[in-house]
Amino acid sequence: MIFPEEFVDLLVRPLFAHVTTIRPDGAIQTNPMWYSWDGSSVRLTTTRDRQKFGNVSADPRISLSIHDPERPYRYLELRGTVSDIEPDPDGKFFDELASRYSMHFDELPDRPRRVVIAVSPQSASWQ
Amino acid sequence: MIFPEEFVDLLVRPLFAHVTTIRPDGAIQTNPMWYSWDGSSVRLTTTRDRQKFGNVSADPRISLSIHDPERPYRYLELRGTVSDIEPDPDGKFFDELASRYSMHFDELPDRPRRVVIAVSPQSASWQ
Repeated sequence: MIFPEEFVDLLVRPLFAHVTTIRPDGAIQTNPMWYSWDGSSVRLTTTRDRQKFGNVSADPRISLSIHDPERPYRYLELRGTVSDIEPDPDGKFFDELASRYSMHFDELPDRPRRVVIAVSPQSASWQ
Repeated sequence: MIFPEEFVDLLVRPLFAHVTTIRPDGAIQTNPMWYSWDGSSVRLTTTRDRQKFGNVSADPRISLSIHDPERPYRYLELRGTVSDIEPDPDGKFFDELASRYSMHFDELPDRPRRVVIAVSPQSASWQ
């Protein structure tokens, strides 16, 4: 494990990760995103027509910063690369995440364009 | 203004910005930070011996992502470059920020190494 066990709750709880990728012009892009954690990798959902997908397809570098809303000085940062991008044409993973975040979408027009981005964290920092 | 007026509260309120810089090895680094906003630039505090200072000294690219803790899907992202790094040897700006965040530090051993990082946002996204 690249970070102390006592920070794992920040990955297990449905919080918001500020996810950073690099745009083709080199500018840095950061957005809050849903995520899930299986004990070794983080998974995110996006669509093929979004900037973020283009960014990680061209440059796999990525970081996630998650802080504890109840104790905002407590945070975990994961740095690494995108290890896999899988199609999610039925939006199954999207629905999994939506349910984790207590949301539900019947109508989701971008379902056919959904992908799962898997991230392998290589290093971490915390406070 | 590069973002709608209705998002300015996210800069005016003492929230936490997830600030991203690029490390010398190219890895992306994101951390929650205090900030202030004067209507045109964002200011941050760090010290000369921190990774973040080394990062922005070598590569001025920076982004900030701030979401609303009461409405977590509402966020503002600013992208840009560091326009200025000024010494803050008395930690005066640090104290200003600490007070903005309702904190107070009498003892601050790194005061002599404090600097103010000014960021000029060049583009923005929001939701």
